[in-house]
Amino acid sequence: MAGSEIYFDNASTTPVDRRVLEDMLPYFSIHFGNPSSLHDFGDKAHDALDNAREQAASLIGANSDEIYFTSCGTESNNMALWGVAGALQDKGKHIISTVIEHQSIINPLKEMKRQGWDITRVGVDKDSFVDPSDIKKEIRDDTVFISVMHANNEVGTIQKIKDIADIAKEKGIAFHSDGVATAGIIPVDVKKLGVDLYTFSSQQMYGPKGAAALFVRKGIRVKPLILGGVQERGRRGGTENIPALVGFGSACELAKKELEKNKEHISGLRDKLIGGILKNIKKVKLNGHPRQRIPGSAHISFEFIEGESILLMLNMQGIFAASGSSCASQALKSSYVLTEMGLSTTLAQGSISFSLGKYNSEKEVDRVLEVLPPIVDRLRQMSPIYTEEKDK
Amino acid sequence: MAGSEIYFDNASTTPVDRRVLEDMLPYFSIHFGNPSSLHDFGDKAHDALDNAREQAASLIGANSDEIYFTSCGTESNNMALWGVAGALQDKGKHIISTVIEHQSIINPLKEMKRQGWDITRVGVDKDSFVDPSDIKKEIRDDTVFISVMHANNEVGTIQKIKDIADIAKEKGIAFHSDGVATAGIIPVDVKKLGVDLYTFSSQQMYGPKGAAALFVRKGIRVKPLILGGVQERGRRGGTENIPALVGFGSACELAKKELEKNKEHISGLRDKLIGGILKNIKKVKLNGHPRQRIPGSAHISFEFIEGESILLMLNMQGIFAASGSSCASQALKSSYVLTEMGLSTTLAQGSISFSLGKYNSEKEVDRVLEVLPPIVDRLRQMSPIYTEEKDK
Repeated sequence: MAGSEIYFDNASTTPVDRRVLEDMLPYFSIHFGNPSSLHDFGDKAHDALDNAREQAASLIGANSDEIYFTSCGTESNNMALWGVAGALQDKGKHIISTVIEHQSIINPLKEMKRQGWDITRVGVDKDSFVDPSDIKKEIRDDTVFISVMHANNEVGTIQKIKDIADIAKEKGIAFHSDGVATAGIIPVDVKKLGVDLYTFSSQQMYGPKGAAALFVRKGIRVKPLILGGVQERGRRGGTENIPALVGFGSACELAKKELEKNKEHISGLRDKLIGGILKNIKKVKLNGHPRQRIPGSAHISFEFIEGESILLMLNMQGIFAASGSSCASQALKSSYVLTEMGLSTTLAQGSISFSLGKYNSEKEVDRVLEVLPPIVDRLRQMSPIYTEEKDK
Repeated sequence: MAGSEIYFDNASTTPVDRRVLEDMLPYFSIHFGNPSSLHDFGDKAHDALDNAREQAASLIGANSDEIYFTSCGTESNNMALWGVAGALQDKGKHIISTVIEHQSIINPLKEMKRQGWDITRVGVDKDSFVDPSDIKKEIRDDTVFISVMHANNEVGTIQKIKDIADIAKEKGIAFHSDGVATAGIIPVDVKKLGVDLYTFSSQQMYGPKGAAALFVRKGIRVKPLILGGVQERGRRGGTENIPALVGFGSACELAKKELEKNKEHISGLRDKLIGGILKNIKKVKLNGHPRQRIPGSAHISFEFIEGESILLMLNMQGIFAASGSSCASQALKSSYVLTEMGLSTTLAQGSISFSLGKYNSEKEVDRVLEVLPPIVDRLRQMSPIYTEEKDK
């Protein structure tokens, strides 16, 4: 990243921490063995894998034998649905989830529906909150699985996971939460939260891409999604990606150690950014709950203009943010998360997600606050739906 | 790898070529963007992804829009079965494969059988050859998919893929070949071979772990195995593992450029190794076809003793080889590939796979040829089934 560039898209992916990369490097060309091999090279890789598993488990308060490594958060979410919900189909074929889940939950659920499952997706309020009582209302005798994300990757609202877990536990229903936006960012203890399954990923916490995990509480049966050799205790075939998993483990350990410091730093920057935008630009709206949100998330709607245009002009100034989820952005559709929160299509299309991370600085926030108002102003002047009257 | 250590387990995994690692490094912490992001960081990652796809396509004579990236060879094989065969089930539910496929084919096929598919697995001869006419005989009206590996990862015999492809084409059946042991190692041109689908992987050709691909010929319908965002043209969700894919692309380019040189070097070493073992140790047997085999593969059965014991004693001397497939080795079962070739269980258990690679040297072969005979001798002296008479 060049010194003058400002990366405010950390929800999409984060740079690899240099300390993490240092830990990974020996595993590419020196300790490059296959952990399944019966010789010293295999042993060395196997030890590295064990260590990474302990680091990952420790971040979320799990036991290491409750961690299954995968290649990405999407695969973990798919594995939770096909491997755990799928294994429960003799008990029932009803799943409850929400309208704001990531596409790696929504799209497999659509496929499951085509295959005869019954899927209920509960709505959210204007702050993107899922009401636990809405989940409770939908529970039926054949409900076997509930999946609610810990925090939404776009607007950042942190859900009442503990309350939903209590409801699921009372009814004996397996409960999964997608923690890609939360693990390593806010304190997560799967035992205290009471979840049965938890997805978390390396590339959103300054670890490398290509590594993620699914926590599966002891006693929950899980079938493999990717079938092959005996890796991951027979639950995920394929040679383990040792360098990436070493990096993921290292990132988990650093995230745990520096969580409070990072949280304070990042949320301070975010509050300054949000405060500055709300103060200096008229006709804007902060999306998501004002306080119950992940530290880095500042999601703003700008009336009368397109988010894509703002992005483009920010990009020309070396400032990088997002509109909607990056996993869907190439499709150029407006965010379903925002419309489900009740935003009009035009307001949803006029939204920008600034997601801050540990490498951002106050100087960068100042620069964005300096650059953004004239961009918005210029775009509004060009907007056919904008009139001076509305601005008063 | 310390200078004195000898790594003869390249079929299991290879070290990352230093030139490949150099190409990857900027993508961890500098050009770390998500290719789906709509800003310069995303564009940079997207360009890298396009380039890697062209490099991978070029290695096997495919077009870049026929390449789908995955996280490993196992995932590619699973995707071929569930995503392509699975999508053909309205046409028929019969699949033909072989008894010597990798577990990432065999285990999904077992699961498909449980789900109502009919699976025929044809046998092999003593050299591990699949007879194309055996495939032809098994074709039925409801046969929709054939999968035969290009070369077996354990014994190295190269199958008559072109002949099988001709049969499949004539009958309009989709034909997949697992090329994990061949792509980058011997010349592969998917158009000349006539395959519809081809799996290949980075970690067996001096690229990083965590990257592989499935070639899908234009016109073949493929459904995603891992569902999420719009990545890989909607066929594989999850943020692309850019550093690993950059490395994979780089490894493909190097493999293509240096293929003949490597092939000559490696097969020369292998021939010396095989010749030396057959000459200096009695009661040994070379497994697989003597000539139609991949360059690095020397698979030998030693009568009266256990392969595991040989491995252990070689390991104590800093020499690393394998017995059976590393993906199954932790299970300590004898190799199904060998027993399917007609080897007795005891002979199968007395087998060692030496797989040589481009970093091996003649000096290393000399060292193994010096160390191995006394190890075999010593183990035989300890073996209850060995008598001096048998040795005459």
